[in-house]
Amino acid sequence: MRAHLLTIGDEILIGQIVDTNAAWLGETLTALGIRVMRADSIGDDRAGIGMAVGEALLGSDLVIVTGGLGPTHDDVTKAAIQDLFGVSSRFDPDIFEHVKARFAHRGLVMPERNRSQAEIPNGFEPLVNPVGTAPGLWRPADGVHGILVVMPGVPHEMKAITAGEVVPRLAAQGGLGAIFQVTFLTTGIGESSLQEKLGPLDEWLGPDCSVAYLPSIHGVRLRLTGHGNDATEAERRVLPLREHVVAMAGRWIFGQGDDTLEGCVGRLLERAGATLGIAESCTGGLIGHRLTNVPGASNYVRGVVVAYDNRVKVDVLGVPDVLLEHHGAVSRDVAIAMAVGARRITGADFSLSTTGIMGPGGGTEDKPVGTVWIAVDSRFGETHAVLLRLGTDRVRNKERAATAALDLLRRTIAGQVFQGPEPVI
Amino acid sequence: MRAHLLTIGDEILIGQIVDTNAAWLGETLTALGIRVMRADSIGDDRAGIGMAVGEALLGSDLVIVTGGLGPTHDDVTKAAIQDLFGVSSRFDPDIFEHVKARFAHRGLVMPERNRSQAEIPNGFEPLVNPVGTAPGLWRPADGVHGILVVMPGVPHEMKAITAGEVVPRLAAQGGLGAIFQVTFLTTGIGESSLQEKLGPLDEWLGPDCSVAYLPSIHGVRLRLTGHGNDATEAERRVLPLREHVVAMAGRWIFGQGDDTLEGCVGRLLERAGATLGIAESCTGGLIGHRLTNVPGASNYVRGVVVAYDNRVKVDVLGVPDVLLEHHGAVSRDVAIAMAVGARRITGADFSLSTTGIMGPGGGTEDKPVGTVWIAVDSRFGETHAVLLRLGTDRVRNKERAATAALDLLRRTIAGQVFQGPEPVI
Repeated sequence: MRAHLLTIGDEILIGQIVDTNAAWLGETLTALGIRVMRADSIGDDRAGIGMAVGEALLGSDLVIVTGGLGPTHDDVTKAAIQDLFGVSSRFDPDIFEHVKARFAHRGLVMPERNRSQAEIPNGFEPLVNPVGTAPGLWRPADGVHGILVVMPGVPHEMKAITAGEVVPRLAAQGGLGAIFQVTFLTTGIGESSLQEKLGPLDEWLGPDCSVAYLPSIHGVRLRLTGHGNDATEAERRVLPLREHVVAMAGRWIFGQGDDTLEGCVGRLLERAGATLGIAESCTGGLIGHRLTNVPGASNYVRGVVVAYDNRVKVDVLGVPDVLLEHHGAVSRDVAIAMAVGARRITGADFSLSTTGIMGPGGGTEDKPVGTVWIAVDSRFGETHAVLLRLGTDRVRNKERAATAALDLLRRTIAGQVFQGPEPVI
Repeated sequence: MRAHLLTIGDEILIGQIVDTNAAWLGETLTALGIRVMRADSIGDDRAGIGMAVGEALLGSDLVIVTGGLGPTHDDVTKAAIQDLFGVSSRFDPDIFEHVKARFAHRGLVMPERNRSQAEIPNGFEPLVNPVGTAPGLWRPADGVHGILVVMPGVPHEMKAITAGEVVPRLAAQGGLGAIFQVTFLTTGIGESSLQEKLGPLDEWLGPDCSVAYLPSIHGVRLRLTGHGNDATEAERRVLPLREHVVAMAGRWIFGQGDDTLEGCVGRLLERAGATLGIAESCTGGLIGHRLTNVPGASNYVRGVVVAYDNRVKVDVLGVPDVLLEHHGAVSRDVAIAMAVGARRITGADFSLSTTGIMGPGGGTEDKPVGTVWIAVDSRFGETHAVLLRLGTDRVRNKERAATAALDLLRRTIAGQVFQGPEPVI
């Protein structure tokens, strides 16, 4: 089954929001064995939407449209679709009750304009929206056109409708080809170097097995894909390549698929029954934020001190004044003293610290913008400090320093630090 | 000038990365008065890329392709474009020196495969990539086709090439129509309620003036757009609507355009010559992270304590044990005690605290998941605490609680708290 995604909204074309729906839908459909051929964004233009939906329906088995279903006057998707099929709409009293109940649940009175959300175009079935007011719409394939699904653009509403209504209906269609994918997550190595480590892959690659390098600020992801008539065959075609990748690049692989580095660190801490305290300076709370995005983080994160001001480094973390005077805040000694202080005041088993110059200002000849020290301390007597030389973009520097620090902690917990021939960072 | 964006990469269609390039390019082109009509994503398929670029070039004055220019074998954009125009490539020694220099700058030896990045298709001019190895490509309009620009997909490389090479070249084309946009940022009010506050807008809306509601987790953005022959005319067409919006909804507007709530709070603190201390529990460092994303945050952020564990609330922040026992960690009294403690240990003028249950676990009948207390304390004797009732999604709850807390702080600094008839949240 071949799918075409259409995202509606001027706000995407003029860049006021980033379209995250297409990526999420792409992942969900791929897991079902549906091949997404194209994902297009078009504006809030009634005629343009109708034309784009019509064209997409002729070339695909499945078209999913998101956006433009809200109650305000700039939401025109429903009208465009009625124009396309030349149909009027019917008032659905069940959906109307649902819309009213959503407002009542939040202690609000339904604005009159939301009544229009209960109008369902003829030929379409409403799809229940468990977390919002705008229902989704489903139009079965009709011999000429493929299946058409229309959903609101608000991401958590679109996701809830997809999970509750769209996926079960698609799975019931049957006849989907099988795909097997595994994505290895690496950090601390660049795309080209990773490719050199893996060497030539010709012996494994072909129409039934492929590899893609997906670099991001957090590291390179390596995606292996197999196609087959069934899941077992698709998986079997990837196995030899998978073994080769783990053998050659396992040192940099911290997880797979939807794993995150913070999730991986959390699992290691949980497995060790250990706790963590953090002293951040230049990362400003990002490490704490990333770690506490993981459900259950309260089992191992004891606390974080963001010692942005030097007085807080001294007064709260107990960093000796003399270290700050002799070495400056961005130094190996202060990074280690911060980690030691974080472990002491939180009573944790492991601790982590960051101190650096994130820019745009604050650099010196000795310590240019992008200079960062990270350190790890543990009650097992292991203390490690690493110097990073990052770039000049403040937000990117924060992300990269946080990732490097989390990876240093991961390697420390896993007992991997400084074992191999390559530098840690 | 009408533009068409094409993003290349299987990783987008299968949802392994979110395409942020289209949004950034959309914003940049819109500011130049170029209208983005469409933004499409297609896979790493040589024939498919060539066909999509060819079609886009026939219908637009400008086509910008991003992605698929890296040195690895899954990057096929350059080959597809050479197929499309039936041209071969030439080796550019200057670009080759640049590629080698990029590696040398990072202390690395250039892998042999990166040599291919110095191959420039005939009919194209290379565009300097100041932050990476893959150059961009520019093909002027030729009477049949519009301008074609090809850039690597790595966002900061694409942005650097666009700013340094593409924007100056486009601006030199001339004849671009004028557009004026102002986007008001609101928080603490929903889309429908905001629309009711504004009332009917028919008297201002038309082909030359439009309004869009852009809801997100941080609040609703309200975008007003005017079209005209020149910038002055475009702006003049929006003015009456703009005044109306400020009069009716000013209470919820915290900024404009690219402002962020944390940037606005930072400006208020800087203007007041005041400093800030933060005690986060449930937000886990997110408030500190957001505030320290703003350049110059070290002028007013003294420090953050993420007191995730109750012992850290007591030992570091000085929250009395008795409050935790009697009221529980998620309570008005503990939120206030955390804010008071954060102000004391950081010596700041203002402080902010959050304590809540973010889910998925940890809720009780009395305090279900989504229950959050936020508090603000100041050396001017103002202490405010607000109860939030959020949803069940952990990451969304963190974002919403951080936004509400920053807004409470903003209103406190600006002296706006509890002045109007509506509740703060």
